[in-house]
Amino acid sequence: MGEFLNLVSPEQALKEVFNQLDSRLGTELVEITDSLNRVVAKDVQSLENLPSFVRSTMDGYSVRASDTFGASESLPALLNVIGEISMGESTKIQIGIGEAVKAYTGGMLAECADAVVMVERTNVVDNQLIEVTRPVAAGENVLQVGEDIRSEEVILQGGQKIRPQDIGGLAALGITHIEVIRKPKVAIVSTGDELVELGFELPIGKIRDINTYTISSMIIESGGIPISYGPLGDNFEEQLQVAQSAVQSCDLVIFSAGSSTSSRDMTARVFSSLGDPGVLVHGISIKPGKPAIIALADGKPAFGLPGNPVSAMVVFDLLVKPVIKKSLGLGEDLFSTVNARITQNIPSVSGREDFIPVKLYSENQKFYATPVFGKSNLIFTLIRANGIIKIPLDSSGIYQGMEVLVKSF
Amino acid sequence: MGEFLNLVSPEQALKEVFNQLDSRLGTELVEITDSLNRVVAKDVQSLENLPSFVRSTMDGYSVRASDTFGASESLPALLNVIGEISMGESTKIQIGIGEAVKAYTGGMLAECADAVVMVERTNVVDNQLIEVTRPVAAGENVLQVGEDIRSEEVILQGGQKIRPQDIGGLAALGITHIEVIRKPKVAIVSTGDELVELGFELPIGKIRDINTYTISSMIIESGGIPISYGPLGDNFEEQLQVAQSAVQSCDLVIFSAGSSTSSRDMTARVFSSLGDPGVLVHGISIKPGKPAIIALADGKPAFGLPGNPVSAMVVFDLLVKPVIKKSLGLGEDLFSTVNARITQNIPSVSGREDFIPVKLYSENQKFYATPVFGKSNLIFTLIRANGIIKIPLDSSGIYQGMEVLVKSF
Repeated sequence: MGEFLNLVSPEQALKEVFNQLDSRLGTELVEITDSLNRVVAKDVQSLENLPSFVRSTMDGYSVRASDTFGASESLPALLNVIGEISMGESTKIQIGIGEAVKAYTGGMLAECADAVVMVERTNVVDNQLIEVTRPVAAGENVLQVGEDIRSEEVILQGGQKIRPQDIGGLAALGITHIEVIRKPKVAIVSTGDELVELGFELPIGKIRDINTYTISSMIIESGGIPISYGPLGDNFEEQLQVAQSAVQSCDLVIFSAGSSTSSRDMTARVFSSLGDPGVLVHGISIKPGKPAIIALADGKPAFGLPGNPVSAMVVFDLLVKPVIKKSLGLGEDLFSTVNARITQNIPSVSGREDFIPVKLYSENQKFYATPVFGKSNLIFTLIRANGIIKIPLDSSGIYQGMEVLVKSF
Repeated sequence: MGEFLNLVSPEQALKEVFNQLDSRLGTELVEITDSLNRVVAKDVQSLENLPSFVRSTMDGYSVRASDTFGASESLPALLNVIGEISMGESTKIQIGIGEAVKAYTGGMLAECADAVVMVERTNVVDNQLIEVTRPVAAGENVLQVGEDIRSEEVILQGGQKIRPQDIGGLAALGITHIEVIRKPKVAIVSTGDELVELGFELPIGKIRDINTYTISSMIIESGGIPISYGPLGDNFEEQLQVAQSAVQSCDLVIFSAGSSTSSRDMTARVFSSLGDPGVLVHGISIKPGKPAIIALADGKPAFGLPGNPVSAMVVFDLLVKPVIKKSLGLGEDLFSTVNARITQNIPSVSGREDFIPVKLYSENQKFYATPVFGKSNLIFTLIRANGIIKIPLDSSGIYQGMEVLVKSF
């Protein structure tokens, strides 16, 4: 087996690929009802004021505030009710001095009115007359034109993920479609003579393909569209041909297995044959996941993940996901980590970053994390865990009771 | 306007509905590739051992460990190489004393071998002879049958959300389909004479429907299927008819607007006319969101959300989402909150829970939250925020620099 000559940190590896990455994915127009979790392509401006007319925020009467000055329970202001503006109705009722018009929460005010008196602050004297028992200031109980959003304000920013409230804001402004970044197509090629595709019989000595399924699901979670080209046997010509076709059709290519340095490992050779600049990084200073590859072919990133299922998922999370998110123009996810106390000692070796699956749980509103130890070829290690922690490069381990940052996994 | 006689806390309100809720949704069988984020219906057991044969974890030679005892650089053990087992190959080569068979990472061991010597610990003497320079213990560099998962072990638990690694585990065991909880159908009925449907012209005095879009998106995020029955005008007969049909076709019904106590507010009357037990809760001790309604009709929950878009989203998050998750059998999401320091004072009124939208950001790996103040009828308040904090019932506010729990929003 060959040796890794230059192990680089995950941060260096990402810098390497970001420096040379041409990440323009193009955009597409979708209906806002299909836009949840998509990424806004470019800043969206409002074309109108919201609200577009002065609205009452209470049930009551629209009035001229000056008519209520000094009003009190003992000395109420008397106003003539000259009409009513129902919900959703637009009328041209105009009030003069000493006049009021019935108003409803969310409804329009009368012309020349500048405030709304809550119904609770009034007494009905007769069909036409009310007493106002408390003064209102101009603008009180009123939403002004453009108070929610003004025309030409930027309402959504390019690069942000679309949330329920954003869709609501677009609907409020009558925007039916939005331009979003196209989802990247990501090829996943599982390799190895020992692999059997799901649904086929398993002869002794062979195993079922796992990585196509875990990595496809992680691609979906990252905002991409997985396209499986595997599993393939350990045949260089066939792998190269598939890689070439995947680079042509997809925005990003992932090979799993064959990423180490033995003579049987051919992912690096396949990636080198795809064109310049070829392999940028081979070997990352992490465990699990050391034998990972990053290459560029035709401006498109290609990743070689280790065959071990745990290693493959850790490397995807650490290297592939940030590249997919970068290509979408997305920033960091602020809600993916939780602080927790570790419940037992975890030894580590200085000089590499160790990633340890943990079981996160909460007790009395405090978070605790228990390491789930297991070899990186055991997929059930990750099934028993729900998070992962990092032991830094320069640490020799963490001790029971220490606080750690647990990442959702 | 009437008054709320009995404000209850969100916790009490949920207890009320959980006590009477019949939440069996039924199940459906889906392909594992379509199962991401679905909820496992019942415990899934493995029907086989994984791995199903003893596997090497290294490139090297499968040997009898006892043949290597005492081996060293200066006094290596000499072994006869009697064959090779390629990747994915099943052979019946059996080794005797002093014999070895070439092995590959992930491949089978020879019969009667109990360990693997790494290739780095061997020297090739000639075509048939190797020197082993370090002893191996029985079981070294070997995955035992069932070491990942044993036959009949529970691999996924009923009520858990399916993650990428879970799909990988199912694939590893050859399981192509999985029984998941059916997604609940959730009716959303936006009401109000002032509402105009998206895509139609907006006359002066009317506003566009927002809540259908925000709440539909939140239903999707909660694992349900939104079905819009609105917008409807303020007509009791029409609303009752739609509510009856929604209760028949859906698992859960949401009305927005009309949830308060004025004579124009008819949601409570509509829900009371749907059947027993009718309205369970009317009025919650929160702000925004006080005029919320929870009812039960035919064992199905019905919610009245306030018409203000911010209030509607807060009440959905607080009351509806937990009911949808409960009906799916899901537990709490451990990764939905982050601790942050508040950047300015926020006053509050004792006796109710206040929910304040905040802008969460990180600086030097620390989290900060700045309140985004705004009326609950301004949807853009929530668009400018990315989280929400709760000021407890008995607090009169929080002070700059205090640590708060920020929930993703």
